[in-house]
Amino acid sequence: MNSAVEQAALLALDWGSSGLRAFLINAQGLTLATRSSAQGASVMNGKPEAYLAALDQIAGDWLLARPQLPLLACGMVGAKHGWREAPYADCPAGEADLAAQTVSVDANGRSLRIIPGLLHQPAGLPPDVMRGEETQLIGALQLYPQLTEAACVVMPGTHSKWAELREANVRGFVSQMTGELYALLRQHSVLGRLMPEQVEASDTAAFLKGVQAARDQGELGLAHQLFAVRTLGLMEQLPAAGLADYLSGLLIGHELRAGLAWRAAQGLSQAPLVLIGEPTLCARYEQGLSVFACKPDLLLDNTAPAGLWRLAQSAAWLLTTN
Amino acid sequence: MNSAVEQAALLALDWGSSGLRAFLINAQGLTLATRSSAQGASVMNGKPEAYLAALDQIAGDWLLARPQLPLLACGMVGAKHGWREAPYADCPAGEADLAAQTVSVDANGRSLRIIPGLLHQPAGLPPDVMRGEETQLIGALQLYPQLTEAACVVMPGTHSKWAELREANVRGFVSQMTGELYALLRQHSVLGRLMPEQVEASDTAAFLKGVQAARDQGELGLAHQLFAVRTLGLMEQLPAAGLADYLSGLLIGHELRAGLAWRAAQGLSQAPLVLIGEPTLCARYEQGLSVFACKPDLLLDNTAPAGLWRLAQSAAWLLTTN
Repeated sequence: MNSAVEQAALLALDWGSSGLRAFLINAQGLTLATRSSAQGASVMNGKPEAYLAALDQIAGDWLLARPQLPLLACGMVGAKHGWREAPYADCPAGEADLAAQTVSVDANGRSLRIIPGLLHQPAGLPPDVMRGEETQLIGALQLYPQLTEAACVVMPGTHSKWAELREANVRGFVSQMTGELYALLRQHSVLGRLMPEQVEASDTAAFLKGVQAARDQGELGLAHQLFAVRTLGLMEQLPAAGLADYLSGLLIGHELRAGLAWRAAQGLSQAPLVLIGEPTLCARYEQGLSVFACKPDLLLDNTAPAGLWRLAQSAAWLLTTN
Repeated sequence: MNSAVEQAALLALDWGSSGLRAFLINAQGLTLATRSSAQGASVMNGKPEAYLAALDQIAGDWLLARPQLPLLACGMVGAKHGWREAPYADCPAGEADLAAQTVSVDANGRSLRIIPGLLHQPAGLPPDVMRGEETQLIGALQLYPQLTEAACVVMPGTHSKWAELREANVRGFVSQMTGELYALLRQHSVLGRLMPEQVEASDTAAFLKGVQAARDQGELGLAHQLFAVRTLGLMEQLPAAGLADYLSGLLIGHELRAGLAWRAAQGLSQAPLVLIGEPTLCARYEQGLSVFACKPDLLLDNTAPAGLWRLAQSAAWLLTTN
């Protein structure tokens, strides 16, 4: 028998919209094996048999070898149109709340537990939601105990999240549609027309120029500043190859402007500032933060496996006998 | 002979991206006849023969009857990829500057004059441009002499413009991509998914709620507030039929927030506030302005014909003998 699967105490699944990642983790929280596939929740059309097939494809051999291995998942697999809805838990929430509100779905005779997303609705404001990021936050707390008292955690992406951690709980958060706006504007708007299809390398100067414009003239409005992507190209004041980076800088700059103001309003300016996400994207946010004279204390890659293990460990779901 | 064409002193063309409108105007500035077609500059692919055919289709009979009728056009017909490029005139600019920088193109042996767009580039900021709206501004000045000293003119649309008029000149302006963002988000983003294809009537309460959110929490960022269109739908805190109006309210609210701050920075808060555009859209902006305790002094429909006539009249291009 493969020694990774033999030593595993948990099969952890990070099942987002656009992909699925499976981790074999031992009782001490060490990741022994990782696999990934493109079978994200968005291509499942809410069909249980599609989820079952994707699970079988990514981990069928592991489950055959270790039928008792507990299964724990986070992400869009638990959305309303996912495999089984895991209703949002309310903020503030910590690991015990998340574990208590996990739902189970039958996976060919095995039970798959799904971690709920989080809902945050401050008085008088619209609701905000996350699904998957709550597990990354638990993972960051597990890996870095210095975040327990207080931290501001930024998770860049399609729908970036800025979260407030207090006493090992997620007290609140805000979403920013930065990544989705970038893709939309690049692909479907008038701004994309002057951009070349392929660019040799990213233009850091153009990116920083966009961030600076957001910092210095953001009060003119994002919808105004975006138009400059077109006019700077039209007037040849920026090379066509740099327009996409300028657009990215404007959008990330507006996120940072609003996010840093939110951080200050939560009283988190002195607390650790953490970036979690894909390393290239985190590096870009780090560059953007430098324009605001701000430096993240930690840059972390996906902390979902650590969060899944932590939740399983604290709820005593790990397989203790091999 | 048709009496309208017999009495005309000018054939004026408002030739934008998405449509073409032709006006027969007499020596006193009275519009005698109007025609419109969908042959906008965006479907011409920059081909002179396509422009010629569209002109012939909309006004061939008029031109046959009155071969000497002067032709004057504004709009995207003069863009870089239009029929003939009319390079941007610099702000500040008045009617004499626009008339002096008109370019001519041959239209089957006749000369068609094209009015330039305007370029505004304040020190240290990216350039901003308009094409077509400069003629609407001249038209508003022609029709309402009380705007001569100073005015703030808002032209809502795909790329809304906020212009500063001083001493009958366009001193500067800012664009806001409000209409384009609405269309993009509605058609291509995650926000459109919960919206029904067809809605019976517009939901004014949802629209005003969006404007209020922009006014009161705009500092959280447009990219954050947009996400509420999804969460309010998901949590059933707004009916699905109102989500598009809420989105429209957020976008228009952010435009008004930024635009009114810009108006104040230009020292225009006491000057007349004018809306020019499609009446339904102007009514929506008027509703939005009420949330900011602000009331427009004038609501005007397309003033391009008045502007075209005014430019032709002041440059002595009108046909004086019939």
